[in-house]
Amino acid sequence: MSGNEKDLLPSWNEGQVKRAMIDFVSRVTKKGGPYFVPAEDRIATFDNDGTLWIEKPFYVQLFFAIDRIRSLAQQHPEWREKQPYKAILENDKAALANISKKEIAEMLLEVHAGSGQEEFIRIAREWLANARHPRFNTLFTELVYQPMLELIDYLRANGFKVFIVSGGGIDFIRAFSEETYGIPCENVVGSSLEYEYAKIDGDWRLTRLAKLNKYDDAEGKPESIALHIGRRPIFVGGNSDGDLAMMRYAATGKKPFLNVLLHHDDAHREWSYDVESPVGKLSEGLDEAEERGWTVVSMKNDWDKVFQLKFNKI
Amino acid sequence: MSGNEKDLLPSWNEGQVKRAMIDFVSRVTKKGGPYFVPAEDRIATFDNDGTLWIEKPFYVQLFFAIDRIRSLAQQHPEWREKQPYKAILENDKAALANISKKEIAEMLLEVHAGSGQEEFIRIAREWLANARHPRFNTLFTELVYQPMLELIDYLRANGFKVFIVSGGGIDFIRAFSEETYGIPCENVVGSSLEYEYAKIDGDWRLTRLAKLNKYDDAEGKPESIALHIGRRPIFVGGNSDGDLAMMRYAATGKKPFLNVLLHHDDAHREWSYDVESPVGKLSEGLDEAEERGWTVVSMKNDWDKVFQLKFNKI
Repeated sequence: MSGNEKDLLPSWNEGQVKRAMIDFVSRVTKKGGPYFVPAEDRIATFDNDGTLWIEKPFYVQLFFAIDRIRSLAQQHPEWREKQPYKAILENDKAALANISKKEIAEMLLEVHAGSGQEEFIRIAREWLANARHPRFNTLFTELVYQPMLELIDYLRANGFKVFIVSGGGIDFIRAFSEETYGIPCENVVGSSLEYEYAKIDGDWRLTRLAKLNKYDDAEGKPESIALHIGRRPIFVGGNSDGDLAMMRYAATGKKPFLNVLLHHDDAHREWSYDVESPVGKLSEGLDEAEERGWTVVSMKNDWDKVFQLKFNKI
Repeated sequence: MSGNEKDLLPSWNEGQVKRAMIDFVSRVTKKGGPYFVPAEDRIATFDNDGTLWIEKPFYVQLFFAIDRIRSLAQQHPEWREKQPYKAILENDKAALANISKKEIAEMLLEVHAGSGQEEFIRIAREWLANARHPRFNTLFTELVYQPMLELIDYLRANGFKVFIVSGGGIDFIRAFSEETYGIPCENVVGSSLEYEYAKIDGDWRLTRLAKLNKYDDAEGKPESIALHIGRRPIFVGGNSDGDLAMMRYAATGKKPFLNVLLHHDDAHREWSYDVESPVGKLSEGLDEAEERGWTVVSMKNDWDKVFQLKFNKI
């Protein structure tokens, strides 16, 4: 960086990772240069859980589901004998920690089926405005990563269009993506249930059905990118093996690309996990990133700050 | 309109329709006014076939399929006995005119299955650069409606985000939407097949499968809007009964809305059709528009020009 240029990534420590990102953006935006990519093709896709915000001790959406299930349990006596509801109602922490992303998604579909889209987003917003993280005792939306907020802004300032492509529920993310990341609803891609537009009691209504439409993880990510975005990304941010497919998708295109893989190796400020973690497992991804020279971010070494500055204790 | 304001809709004749559109846009953009809608909620959705470009004598995508089927017929002897392929290869015009939008979509899926997204878009672009409309003897992309191009620009100038929501194939529309309408790939919603990301002969590849993912017409339109956009539109443009569901969806929201229904009543400059037309049927829509006071555009009376100015004979 030249001395009089403003640092748009102040929470990233100087080093190889920060340099790789700035070099990439400079190259693809340099008109007439050999790596120039026109603005319409500057697609950046980011995973959400563990990439843009915290995913420990388990997915935020699972906290949401737990609270929701507890508040609706009276109306659903069958949940007492059915997993994963049983584990939730009995507060069985060992069982809870092993619930897969897919089981969560399916459970959420069931818990929130029957409502409209606007109603669901309102319920999620109310929850997000009140629920607190057990370790940090703060709102979940404050536990988004400051360096990633800066990166999103930096990419946008350079003509990129930024999308979330997440295994999490599409409407849950839409409840906070605009306010929290500046990423509008239509730029959110995620797991989804089926919507049905039908006449109910004389009124036309859109309803969220308890039926999975798309599980947007692993190979589902490039598939959803094709459907929703229609273009291959050239910048991909992720943190787990579930993001590998969209990184491979970027890497096999004909354009320059940068894959940035966040490694959670900071038990002091956040969490340290990779190959053994049921949530946010990162094993194959680390190997492939090393083999192919993709950019691996060490939370411990590359980030000066972890959480957004509003929550500036860490 | 005040005397010193520039007319951004010069191809629309003065009258009730033009006034309704300008009044609506003025109201929803007036900060502090009772009808103000914040920019993030200013979602406009337009049907494509018959709303933004010509759909007669049949859907443009059917011309594309016909040429494609003829060029691939040697490799598919089974098509000689299978409808609608048979009608196409035998040039059976009566049968062709009655092929439904859904049959076309399914046939297109089959014809184009196996290719990647980028490859398919490239094939569609090559076709669009050469194929000509039988009546007007010009490129199909020149047969887009000038008043609609102005309307899209006018909405965008007023902070609207403009989307296509079409029964046509999503990737076919993406082949020309950006260049023709200034509507980028990610703002195109349409019928889709399933995409599969899988390892083929050692390489990870995205493939378009011959399997319908979503038929995006009628009730499918609000369902796809929920999935892709995540917000209810406040401005809807359409021309057939297939657009009625998304108009109802806009009309039952809590925000101000404007539904604009184009009536093809201009046999001289374009075509005249409504209740009896198999393609672009408009019957229930006319009744409901009248009953609810939605805006009906008469092509004959409300449009000073029909096609885009490049093709300025009409």
